[in-house]
Amino acid sequence: MKKHNFSAGPSILPKSVIEQSSKSIEELDSIGLSLIEISHRSKEFISIMNEAQSLVLKLLKLDSKIYKVLFLQGGASMQFLMSAINLLDKRAGFINTGSWSQKAINEARLFGEVIEIASSKDKNYNYIPKNFKITKKIDYLHLTTNNTIFGTQFKTFPKFDFPLIADMSSDIFSRNIDYSKFDLFYAGAQKNMGPAGTTLVVIKDDILGKVNRKIPSMLDYKIHIDKESMFNTPPVFAVYTSLLTLRWIESNGGIVGIEKQNNKKAEMIYNEIDRNNAFEGFTKEEDRSIMNATFNLKDGLNEEKFNKLCEENGISGLKGHRSVGGYRASIYNALPFESIEVLIDVMKKFEKISL
Amino acid sequence: MKKHNFSAGPSILPKSVIEQSSKSIEELDSIGLSLIEISHRSKEFISIMNEAQSLVLKLLKLDSKIYKVLFLQGGASMQFLMSAINLLDKRAGFINTGSWSQKAINEARLFGEVIEIASSKDKNYNYIPKNFKITKKIDYLHLTTNNTIFGTQFKTFPKFDFPLIADMSSDIFSRNIDYSKFDLFYAGAQKNMGPAGTTLVVIKDDILGKVNRKIPSMLDYKIHIDKESMFNTPPVFAVYTSLLTLRWIESNGGIVGIEKQNNKKAEMIYNEIDRNNAFEGFTKEEDRSIMNATFNLKDGLNEEKFNKLCEENGISGLKGHRSVGGYRASIYNALPFESIEVLIDVMKKFEKISL
Repeated sequence: MKKHNFSAGPSILPKSVIEQSSKSIEELDSIGLSLIEISHRSKEFISIMNEAQSLVLKLLKLDSKIYKVLFLQGGASMQFLMSAINLLDKRAGFINTGSWSQKAINEARLFGEVIEIASSKDKNYNYIPKNFKITKKIDYLHLTTNNTIFGTQFKTFPKFDFPLIADMSSDIFSRNIDYSKFDLFYAGAQKNMGPAGTTLVVIKDDILGKVNRKIPSMLDYKIHIDKESMFNTPPVFAVYTSLLTLRWIESNGGIVGIEKQNNKKAEMIYNEIDRNNAFEGFTKEEDRSIMNATFNLKDGLNEEKFNKLCEENGISGLKGHRSVGGYRASIYNALPFESIEVLIDVMKKFEKISL
Repeated sequence: MKKHNFSAGPSILPKSVIEQSSKSIEELDSIGLSLIEISHRSKEFISIMNEAQSLVLKLLKLDSKIYKVLFLQGGASMQFLMSAINLLDKRAGFINTGSWSQKAINEARLFGEVIEIASSKDKNYNYIPKNFKITKKIDYLHLTTNNTIFGTQFKTFPKFDFPLIADMSSDIFSRNIDYSKFDLFYAGAQKNMGPAGTTLVVIKDDILGKVNRKIPSMLDYKIHIDKESMFNTPPVFAVYTSLLTLRWIESNGGIVGIEKQNNKKAEMIYNEIDRNNAFEGFTKEEDRSIMNATFNLKDGLNEEKFNKLCEENGISGLKGHRSVGGYRASIYNALPFESIEVLIDVMKKFEKISL
């Protein structure tokens, strides 16, 4: 039985992507070689890399004269470091919406002054801070568009007169926002784009060259841009499988089409959380993520009974992160409506037998 | 037609590994989920990571109380940086056997004094420097055990009273040397271990903690060791496929068994290079790599004619690196004898029609 995969990441990918990815390991496009046995300098892989880069910009409606696309390694964690070492000259501002923002702050502190512009720590990060003021000159503002752990999501982004940097690991390609408001954004592939092993970086190169420190080659955005994301051997499999997912997004109506589906799926699950007397949502309503729905059992109800029901119905990956507890339904692009329906059904059943 | 794959990396993997790797993308071990859709914190992946780490030490005959095994990202290029930032306090020594050594030297210079103990640059790196003297105190000596581009290989390693660090990207798991002579060694997976996307690091943790600088989290060996190679999401697919290759090595007689095969394959190809009047070897005989055999056409012979013959016989990836020219047969662990025979046959045919 194929599971209903609510995992927060690595997470569910489209069925057609899984199939073609698997096939490419046996043989890539009838070339007589496996995808993972070809040189990254082969014409086949160069074409894969080029198409992936172009398709990212096309889907996000960004201009290739202004934005560069890289497929790097090391996850968002490496980008916490790279963004700071490349861009932090004197002072940077951060909005702290929990764990991932905090990690980005910690790395940035190695390279300059860090101001926490706003934080939602006072309520265990269950909301997105708003109406914050920036009074000091900063080199850039960094934020996490969607917090995977707490299930919060920025809904709007102001335009600033300094660079805006975002970690979009868990909601890139999920919604139709104005990506041109950002000067640099990055995302680990393993949620909405592909398997673990590559990190998408989209960057305006005119923000570079403003710090004086010597940057090691592997951490230098400029080197990766100049080498067209092939400074050293890229993670071939992860880039190819990401390309397959990008093609799938395009053939499903692009980001506009995907967003419609995502909004509908999120509405279904949040409606049930609010209606069901056995559960309560964790996140402040207006800041709820359309990617990660966090919720808890009401006091005194039997957790093991709900877990067992989930297991019996093939529901996988629903356990909440240890800093929130309870449950988290990650409902990424590729999650089918059917899985949402099964989960809602299980929640209803649990309510009936528990209350 | 399946090609004869002489690619220098990413390169050929065992047929059984390719098959199981492909299958795992469809579904991992009948768990109802694809390998690339499971959490890296799932019991399935933790077991994969643990087995891969243990098997590395078992195959290399190293003690798990002394050596730690990491599967990181970023390739050897990231290790040029990580080894230096973690270990270079005042001064480090390097043996320069070409391109990869040079890149390691360049990164290390950002963190301290670098002494080039010996170099084979005077002869375009076609030999391994010997009888070098180390007169100044150094924090460590760094060398490249096998140079993929020039086809040279260290045959013996002295024991020093300071740490020995090696880039083993292109010959790890290919021969039965005393790995306990090294304090740190690393290898991009994409030659003898797996697909591109992960880098094996084997390290004695008692060499750490001797520099004063602050090390960013993602570059800090100690953090990766403490988190058992799961500080952040590891490259799940590349680690799993590497494990499959490690199992294949074990079932083929371990490194001793593999080395016998490799020596035989290398002997066959070098015998033909020496016998054939249309070709000449690039590397000094005693330093020839058993992994990458570099050779050139003799003056005046028709390169395109040889390339055409290769293509007609399904030979792929034989083109030499631009800094050497000519040809390079990369004959990694998984390359079957049949491919060597086909190449030798084509070389003989070319000799007959050319001379």
